[in-house]
Amino acid sequence: MPNYNMPELIKRKRDGKSLSREEIVFWIDGYVKGVIPDYQVSALLMAIFIRGMEPREVADLTQIMMHSGETISLAGVDGVKIDKHSTGGVGDKVSFIVAPLVAACGVKAPMISGRGLGHTGGTLDKLESIPGFNVSLDSAEMRDVLQKTGMMICGQTADIVPADKKIYALRDITATVESLPLIASSIMSKKLALLTDGLVLDVKTGKGAFMQTEEDALALCRALVDIGNRAGRKTIGLITGMDQPLGRAVGNSLEIIESIQCLKNSGPADLMEVSLAVASAMLVAGEAVAHISEARSKIEDALQSGRALSVFRSFIEAQDGDPRVCDDYSLLPCSSVREDFSAASEGFIEAIDARSIGELCVEAGAGRRKIDDAIDYGAGFYFHKKVGDPVAAGESVVTIHIAGKEKIPFIKERLRAAITIGQSRVPSATMVRCFVDRDGKRPWPV
Amino acid sequence: MPNYNMPELIKRKRDGKSLSREEIVFWIDGYVKGVIPDYQVSALLMAIFIRGMEPREVADLTQIMMHSGETISLAGVDGVKIDKHSTGGVGDKVSFIVAPLVAACGVKAPMISGRGLGHTGGTLDKLESIPGFNVSLDSAEMRDVLQKTGMMICGQTADIVPADKKIYALRDITATVESLPLIASSIMSKKLALLTDGLVLDVKTGKGAFMQTEEDALALCRALVDIGNRAGRKTIGLITGMDQPLGRAVGNSLEIIESIQCLKNSGPADLMEVSLAVASAMLVAGEAVAHISEARSKIEDALQSGRALSVFRSFIEAQDGDPRVCDDYSLLPCSSVREDFSAASEGFIEAIDARSIGELCVEAGAGRRKIDDAIDYGAGFYFHKKVGDPVAAGESVVTIHIAGKEKIPFIKERLRAAITIGQSRVPSATMVRCFVDRDGKRPWPV
Repeated sequence: MPNYNMPELIKRKRDGKSLSREEIVFWIDGYVKGVIPDYQVSALLMAIFIRGMEPREVADLTQIMMHSGETISLAGVDGVKIDKHSTGGVGDKVSFIVAPLVAACGVKAPMISGRGLGHTGGTLDKLESIPGFNVSLDSAEMRDVLQKTGMMICGQTADIVPADKKIYALRDITATVESLPLIASSIMSKKLALLTDGLVLDVKTGKGAFMQTEEDALALCRALVDIGNRAGRKTIGLITGMDQPLGRAVGNSLEIIESIQCLKNSGPADLMEVSLAVASAMLVAGEAVAHISEARSKIEDALQSGRALSVFRSFIEAQDGDPRVCDDYSLLPCSSVREDFSAASEGFIEAIDARSIGELCVEAGAGRRKIDDAIDYGAGFYFHKKVGDPVAAGESVVTIHIAGKEKIPFIKERLRAAITIGQSRVPSATMVRCFVDRDGKRPWPV
Repeated sequence: MPNYNMPELIKRKRDGKSLSREEIVFWIDGYVKGVIPDYQVSALLMAIFIRGMEPREVADLTQIMMHSGETISLAGVDGVKIDKHSTGGVGDKVSFIVAPLVAACGVKAPMISGRGLGHTGGTLDKLESIPGFNVSLDSAEMRDVLQKTGMMICGQTADIVPADKKIYALRDITATVESLPLIASSIMSKKLALLTDGLVLDVKTGKGAFMQTEEDALALCRALVDIGNRAGRKTIGLITGMDQPLGRAVGNSLEIIESIQCLKNSGPADLMEVSLAVASAMLVAGEAVAHISEARSKIEDALQSGRALSVFRSFIEAQDGDPRVCDDYSLLPCSSVREDFSAASEGFIEAIDARSIGELCVEAGAGRRKIDDAIDYGAGFYFHKKVGDPVAAGESVVTIHIAGKEKIPFIKERLRAAITIGQSRVPSATMVRCFVDRDGKRPWPV
């Protein structure tokens, strides 16, 4: 490899030039090995932040970061494997619904997920509310569960993408977090380390999302889709709404129950709409259908026939959980106190601030403030009313599930601020705004 | 002081906002104390490099850097004290001429100078070619020499501007050197640490200068003048030419001799032109005259009367040098070998590349490549011909002064490339292009 010089390389990016693949290898490799110091990398990150990167550079950066650590092979597992990633939202339990759906249609769905911190819940925490459930699989176990059941969801055990850990820690303290190329490469380097055939990205937009405007969400979505396709993975993105919590349930076991309800074809409309769109995109990415318009009937059949629920049962069993929770929700943790928050006056629900609800969920014990906080798996909220619904004075809007009564007055006060009741009937928003494939943005539904 | 947060502060500059004085105090202070790490400062420096700083910020940065270490008081020395700084050139011995001139006109001229490294010679090295001369003065000795003789030139002994040392070392390895606000604050923080009443800045432009174009030189000059005046020092700048070496002599003792010749009113025209302009500006800055146009006759008188040369003699004596060198140049070191470089053909001198001559001077032993190289004080070049002069075939253009004959063929070959002889008579360039005071750029002569 040619011998590059770090100040020269920083200078090139500082002056708005693009870095070659070899130059990116040089600095990522040198940084991970500790031969390039933090202070040179932070200067480079700031130059990248301000000057940007072209799509080819971002794709190279992502792949080089991915190769800085272990990757997880799925070789030996039959069929096509499609991962799914969401940029995070409140009440987002889409993974539990789409994985069984697509598995029932012949596309395998392996996912490596994380725990919750702050206002968004964690997929692993939700699964751990199922008695016995094991999220710690080594790669042989991952392949085994995936082969046997068609899906698999576990935590990160292998030392994947050490470059991202080191770079992210530095970005966090040098004001270089909110950079599209750096955000996109960080997300995708971790996703691509799981060697699937393709990937579907659910990019959330709205008040409760990381990308609040649809414009920002679309820019991120395009960047992610471009990186995936340049890496040779069939990648499709969707922009979906995250203004109010998704579905009616927010909280760990409450969300597992709601997911099972969806698999029984009796889930809330907004959650079903997003789940069917994501599952359709996964079938297209997995080439189980030629076009998104053909996916719907296959998915409906997997749902109606109960095959998707069967997949979910066998998945729980394969990861040491108690599959009887699918039939008897009382086997899941539940809170001793259930208190209704009722409407003070008649009107319509105009807004439910997703971010505030996520934060209140932590307050209720369902999430973490610090990484080692304990979780109350039964705690959370169940919304009887959602945006656009009429409500009578005194009628329950949401039930609070919590372990004790002490915090209830405080939570109610905060709910009053988070839930807007007014006189105008807000039309319910379209949940799925568009989808993005390698050819660009497309309308939804197709 | 309010408690600032370094990532927030970096973010503000990253987004093109300006930093308050208190914010600059926070990071300079924290960095010098070692509580703010290199990697945060390098990210901030890159943001400053790309986003720039407004004049108020640069002035604050400079003053805060200056206050990071010791300052040198001149309290107790009578009269007004005006420093002079040059951005560096080849054959630049202006300090030795202007300090006695203005001292003879009643304005005291104290200067803290450096040694040579690379293609520009060092003021201290030139002075040390005078037998016995001492450049190491403590601040009491500085005041004493200044009070007694009206001038003083010595090296930096006190721990001035530690912030600049630390920041400069970091800039050097993070591609953040060539930034106007950072260059200007680095220069001025060190100059302002000597607590004079004012300052004259000789900003060089041309092939042998740091700022090659007049536009860049003017931008730097304006920044420096603005910083000085905002710090409450009367500051004036000049843009002067540095395409060919200044004067006829390049090399340590050769330049001392030429300076004495100037003080005897028989120096070369270009050097005299620059020296008279700089001295005039110093008299204006020191308020010895109301306007530059009034300075000339005072300076001519100091020169013609021999008072300036007397000041120089007593200055040499006060700093332990042998003042008899002013009358007997053989008391100065001289090289054993003197070899002429002659014109190969008849014509006119079209160009003498100042930078190449500076580099060849190091080759001849008169300068340093590394900081601990020994210097041959007698070595250097004496130009019989300068740009615009006619020359006959075989006529000497320059005499090489050197300790041995070995390097002569190589030096001659390089001189052939550095000195252009052609058929067109290049008009001699105006040495002083303009001056810059707090009201902006002005034409010269006034």
